[in-house]
Amino acid sequence: MKNSNYFEKLSKHFVKMSRFAHLGAICGWDQAAMMPTGGNQARSEAMAELALHMHELQNKPELADWYDGAALEDLSFEQSASLREMRRVWQNSRIIPADLVEAKSLAGSKCEHAWRTQRGENDWDGFAKNFEHVVKLSQEEAQIRGEKNGTSPYDGMLNLYEPGMTTKALDGIFQNVKSWLPAMTQEIIEKQKSESIIDFENIFEEEKQKQLGLEAMKILGFDFDHGRLDASVHPFCGGIPSDVRITTRYDEADFEFALMGVVHETGHACYEQGLPKSLAGLPSGEARSMGIHESQSLFFEMQLGRSREFLELLSPSLQNLFGGQNSDAFGADNLVKSATRVKAGFIRVDADEATYPAHVILRYEIERDLMNGVIDYSDIPEIWNLKMQEALGVSTKGNYKDGCMQDIHWTDGAFGYFPSYTLGAMYAAQFKAAMAKQIDIDTIIKSKDLSPIFNWLNDAIWSKASLLSTDELVSAATGEVLNADHFKAHLMTRYL
Amino acid sequence: MKNSNYFEKLSKHFVKMSRFAHLGAICGWDQAAMMPTGGNQARSEAMAELALHMHELQNKPELADWYDGAALEDLSFEQSASLREMRRVWQNSRIIPADLVEAKSLAGSKCEHAWRTQRGENDWDGFAKNFEHVVKLSQEEAQIRGEKNGTSPYDGMLNLYEPGMTTKALDGIFQNVKSWLPAMTQEIIEKQKSESIIDFENIFEEEKQKQLGLEAMKILGFDFDHGRLDASVHPFCGGIPSDVRITTRYDEADFEFALMGVVHETGHACYEQGLPKSLAGLPSGEARSMGIHESQSLFFEMQLGRSREFLELLSPSLQNLFGGQNSDAFGADNLVKSATRVKAGFIRVDADEATYPAHVILRYEIERDLMNGVIDYSDIPEIWNLKMQEALGVSTKGNYKDGCMQDIHWTDGAFGYFPSYTLGAMYAAQFKAAMAKQIDIDTIIKSKDLSPIFNWLNDAIWSKASLLSTDELVSAATGEVLNADHFKAHLMTRYL
Repeated sequence: MKNSNYFEKLSKHFVKMSRFAHLGAICGWDQAAMMPTGGNQARSEAMAELALHMHELQNKPELADWYDGAALEDLSFEQSASLREMRRVWQNSRIIPADLVEAKSLAGSKCEHAWRTQRGENDWDGFAKNFEHVVKLSQEEAQIRGEKNGTSPYDGMLNLYEPGMTTKALDGIFQNVKSWLPAMTQEIIEKQKSESIIDFENIFEEEKQKQLGLEAMKILGFDFDHGRLDASVHPFCGGIPSDVRITTRYDEADFEFALMGVVHETGHACYEQGLPKSLAGLPSGEARSMGIHESQSLFFEMQLGRSREFLELLSPSLQNLFGGQNSDAFGADNLVKSATRVKAGFIRVDADEATYPAHVILRYEIERDLMNGVIDYSDIPEIWNLKMQEALGVSTKGNYKDGCMQDIHWTDGAFGYFPSYTLGAMYAAQFKAAMAKQIDIDTIIKSKDLSPIFNWLNDAIWSKASLLSTDELVSAATGEVLNADHFKAHLMTRYL
Repeated sequence: MKNSNYFEKLSKHFVKMSRFAHLGAICGWDQAAMMPTGGNQARSEAMAELALHMHELQNKPELADWYDGAALEDLSFEQSASLREMRRVWQNSRIIPADLVEAKSLAGSKCEHAWRTQRGENDWDGFAKNFEHVVKLSQEEAQIRGEKNGTSPYDGMLNLYEPGMTTKALDGIFQNVKSWLPAMTQEIIEKQKSESIIDFENIFEEEKQKQLGLEAMKILGFDFDHGRLDASVHPFCGGIPSDVRITTRYDEADFEFALMGVVHETGHACYEQGLPKSLAGLPSGEARSMGIHESQSLFFEMQLGRSREFLELLSPSLQNLFGGQNSDAFGADNLVKSATRVKAGFIRVDADEATYPAHVILRYEIERDLMNGVIDYSDIPEIWNLKMQEALGVSTKGNYKDGCMQDIHWTDGAFGYFPSYTLGAMYAAQFKAAMAKQIDIDTIIKSKDLSPIFNWLNDAIWSKASLLSTDELVSAATGEVLNADHFKAHLMTRYL
């Protein structure tokens, strides 16, 4: 029997922490999907108290000895990976003082809660009062993380979401994308000009949209014994692996937004539901990175959800639920045309997969410069407007709600997260290309039994959790590390 | 300035604990109203971890010194009351070992979760396997509490829910009730034989029932900025004072069950919402006792909800939502007859206010003898059957789901709670009698603006929280301590 006394102590401690995280995950979901407005003050205080407690647990004084002890123990491959991930989480946590953790949690809750109404009111000035505080505290955090890692402040934050990723690498990848994407986007828009799309003119009752979303979730393998679907202003995937809570937002004039949102969050959810139960509560049993997480949601949304084969599966239900006099609109041809329409717009979450990277690169450049102290929070609206005009030819002057106030991420101080979206899109295309060498994806979707696809993802990604590094995981799954050519090829195949 | 250094430390500590209790309250509500079945294992573990943490906080070693120090400080009336209540909570907690707390929480979650399906399957044997463990751990707890207080084990449990109440007092009260209630019940049933009630024959869609419930909640002053209504198998009132979560259960063949359930829980909710914000997080700012809590729900349900004046307010909506060919059924006359119909039945939560005490007294006698070790858990079905035949002339032989498996309380080990229901009915009648000397209740209800009633309750009960003892509170509100004659008089006035 192997000697793993310290390792066992560490594991037990992490399982304990995961139980408190569970309470926070459910109360966080509740705060967004269920809570009446008057509950916010007490909830923010309770969540801040929990964050403080988690921070204390993460920085329990005995841990340093336990890590030293465990390093000398004879550990299996899985245990070593667990130890590496536990240490990473610990290092990320211990360097931030408890009072900064609490202050940022309180400021973030307050800013986010107010934002929920301020956004609708286009109230930048009101928002900025809370946001200034969030930025200041986030800059302090970034400063500490950067110093500790010997990197820029922004790289310190980036590392939280994408371990191993750097500004240098991202600048390279995004420069590459910027070198071909604008021209390609224009070419796609030109090409699509000749296509005629039948507009959807119905009123899409929320209840029927929910029914459609649930049908899509069933096809996509969501396990309803271990999760549920609700509504919230900003769609997300929360909860815990054995109880995944996804949300969407319903617009009665547009069924596609909620449907594709559900498909997207279902990708996140299936990753969570597929994580190995034997590693539950341990960092090695968690999703590899935000980019890999996003690769699963975008695999579901872009590679599966917007494919002709998948839309053919949903077409009969759409005609049945909403058809009426417009039933041609819900034929597969029109659905595909609409689901792959490319146009320059204001809103990231409404963007098509061709223009989406432009939204991300803009945010990346702003948050990089903001964390590194190159720009000030008050500069954001102007820079946003300039960059939007540059990238997509649209102006957001004075239009904060469709500009820099549209996302939830910064309100909570999650600077460094945005690049994950485009990394995810690239990984998704790369996984699809590798998968296509082994199974006939289109035929499988047509059969309505998508389990071979889920089995591939489960074997290659979900069941691996954080046992490997991102590069190792992607190499094992596809034979190479991140290669943006697959994304480019995917866009060319689908759109040109 | 007064010296209250230790008192301040204690207060801060209790506010901290209330924040963890908040997380538990929301996750507990979620577990009953939202959670998919597959989430239960992890949730039970998380709730047990939280219970353990709460126990640790409640038994923080410094507290003994803080209580000693605070006892010597110059405190205001409110602070003294706060100190008394903090000490009571502390004493109740510290005497139970941490491993017993955790074991009971785990066993209770497991038993309750399985019961949610076992009850429908009438599966006593399956239930008993979990229940045996809950009883054993509860008996251990009762033993410790009784020894500490120098009372019987059962009195040790009773004291948790009704501070100051004893088996001796309850035996006296319940013997009194037993001396007149059976004859009165028979007399009422005889009298009602000549009344004809139009049966409700509609299908009552859940969505419409919910609409009706929400209308009743509005009339009853529920603050929707600080609470919400959902559905669960066993209706309850949970959450926290600034975010009260009530639930009901919908039966599409019977609108009265859910409606009166909503009215009942709204009474609990308004008490919670009316607790003083200045004492939020402190034991002195909590509801006085379970009996006083129940007095508010029963005031709402029995004194208001089943009155002719209140049912007249709802009659138009009922006719509008469900009227159709049966619209006479929803006239006030028929509604009142139906809402005050007395009959002997199996189910406590379905019982009318005249037979309800019989259900409670039966449970009281069983849980008293169970905690005192006079009977065994396996004796319960037989004793239940015998006592039901004795009290109400109905047999529950082999019918566990409508017998001893009908309630949630014992599954969690909440022995000592049941008497609160009948104490609550008695207090409610006493409050009504006192209120009627000051304001014209019937006219106020007819006006549809019930605020004078809520103001009376707020002044006399809600805003007082736990600043006074139960006897002091009731005396201040009504000029006397508990007097069961008001309950008897209420039944005679309404039914004979």
